[in-house]
Amino acid sequence: MGLDKVTDKPHERLAAFLAPELADVNALIRERMSSEHAPRIPEVTAHLIEAGGKRLRPMLTLASAKACGYDGPYHIHLAATVEFIHTATLLHDDVVDESGQRRGRPTANLLWDNKSSVLVGDYLFARAFQLMTDSENMRVLRILSNAAATIAEGEVLQLTAAQDLSTTEDVYLQVVRGKTAALFSAATQVGGVLAGESEEVIQGLFDYGDALGIAFQIVDDLLDYWGTEQTGKNIGDDFRERKLTLPLIKAVAKADADERAFWQRTIAKGDQRDGDLDHAITLLTAHDTLNETRDVALEWADRSKAALNAVPDGEIKTMLADIADYVVARLR
Amino acid sequence: MGLDKVTDKPHERLAAFLAPELADVNALIRERMSSEHAPRIPEVTAHLIEAGGKRLRPMLTLASAKACGYDGPYHIHLAATVEFIHTATLLHDDVVDESGQRRGRPTANLLWDNKSSVLVGDYLFARAFQLMTDSENMRVLRILSNAAATIAEGEVLQLTAAQDLSTTEDVYLQVVRGKTAALFSAATQVGGVLAGESEEVIQGLFDYGDALGIAFQIVDDLLDYWGTEQTGKNIGDDFRERKLTLPLIKAVAKADADERAFWQRTIAKGDQRDGDLDHAITLLTAHDTLNETRDVALEWADRSKAALNAVPDGEIKTMLADIADYVVARLR
Repeated sequence: MGLDKVTDKPHERLAAFLAPELADVNALIRERMSSEHAPRIPEVTAHLIEAGGKRLRPMLTLASAKACGYDGPYHIHLAATVEFIHTATLLHDDVVDESGQRRGRPTANLLWDNKSSVLVGDYLFARAFQLMTDSENMRVLRILSNAAATIAEGEVLQLTAAQDLSTTEDVYLQVVRGKTAALFSAATQVGGVLAGESEEVIQGLFDYGDALGIAFQIVDDLLDYWGTEQTGKNIGDDFRERKLTLPLIKAVAKADADERAFWQRTIAKGDQRDGDLDHAITLLTAHDTLNETRDVALEWADRSKAALNAVPDGEIKTMLADIADYVVARLR
Repeated sequence: MGLDKVTDKPHERLAAFLAPELADVNALIRERMSSEHAPRIPEVTAHLIEAGGKRLRPMLTLASAKACGYDGPYHIHLAATVEFIHTATLLHDDVVDESGQRRGRPTANLLWDNKSSVLVGDYLFARAFQLMTDSENMRVLRILSNAAATIAEGEVLQLTAAQDLSTTEDVYLQVVRGKTAALFSAATQVGGVLAGESEEVIQGLFDYGDALGIAFQIVDDLLDYWGTEQTGKNIGDDFRERKLTLPLIKAVAKADADERAFWQRTIAKGDQRDGDLDHAITLLTAHDTLNETRDVALEWADRSKAALNAVPDGEIKTMLADIADYVVARLR
């Protein structure tokens, strides 16, 4: 089963365990992202899909199906579906974020990228839907198309909440549930549905993916202020894009008049100067909101593990629980 | 059946005949484009979906299903699906075209629109897939997800063919089949599938929609050089965006050295000056490529009517044939 290499990282352990299936997923992805008529498509997607993606989401589908004893072929298709949806949203996020950042690249180049990103993303979305129809399972189709709608809703909600200092933790949770957790929970849920599991198990898998996705995104948002070279995250992107993420929302709630004026200028108005990011981090640290945010992430990781109670015992279930630890381990 | 008003326009006659179904489609569209969590979504889509769209594509689905005697409820869902896919592609085209045109609007506004257009388009795509799952018909799902992939492929192909003077009529036909005809043919084909028709009828409906869509797009491309106030088309958009459409491809093929240099400068290099559009139209007229393009459109309209031979006779079939005339009537 490919477990010859011993590793400490739960993610790599799961990847080794799922190696044969992951190879099938990769082959299917390569096959389905090609385009007879438009060779530009694989050019645009290749760097995203080939280049060392962790394949976390497709692994969740494979693992969930196998944890429920599924032995058909369609978890491969659904894992590829999930990766296509993920890649399509990355491409479309790129349009959004790149435009917002205005990195000073030549406009023509920027726009060319935007065009390709939008249309190739659309192609991957459509390919994802084609792939899921291969399963011939209506409930699976409904779950995944609901997830796609929820992802888009979450992204739009994030757009309207950006720059808005009155954004609450509830709205933040809704955004995170949409833009990130919806695909995690669909990825795990369809594994159980495909295996014909009981509603209790299917719900457990959904809850596991939902909480895992929320923990994952909160960690991501936290590392945007707390990252180090090791985490590989670029610090300050969310601040520059004026996104209201959890550490910031918590700090705004505790702000005195001076601090409020600072957030008003930098986030609401977008007037950012040298040293502002450092000052923002100082405020987050002073109010302890980075630690508080970490605690929230750890709590969701715990909920995610608790949801696994409903899932059949076995080696894979243990690995799924380890993945929940792994997702928050970047914080330690 | 709402035929109390007499009209000469085949499109309006069909709309009157389908009035009860169209009302259901409109109600379903309004219901499904709303978003509990992201009120921005209906804001963005409303002007596109409410404002006097001709609803040609959804009418094709309704009419095809009814022509085959379908009496279930799901042609309404599929008609709404088709309109959602159409609206999503319009929103995403907007990103592409708007960026390319740089209409001199403030950048912030332009980018805000781009963000909303991409994400709300994604939402409509996802909603379209949700809607089609309501039909619980796997073949319908496959046809419509194939169409969505073909549309995106056509758009990407158009992107790579733009500015490229070596674009052939074959490539042009591929682009048109993708970006426009794929949705027309899917719209008509699913009507027959839903009604459980024979393969011959289903193929006939597909061929009708395919040829109709091609005729429709060729006329659209022609009017970009040949438009008048009556057609409501803005002349010269394709020229400015350096798109290789049929009139241009035919003129480039007949160009002498001087003319080639002109196309090289204006289309390949994009160096366009005052009077260039007029000169381009002069060249198209001199080589008679506008008339030649019109003849190609008329030929496709004829093929579209011929394909209806396979479709059950009746009032609706006559109306569908009239629609083919209507699509090219803008040329006369």
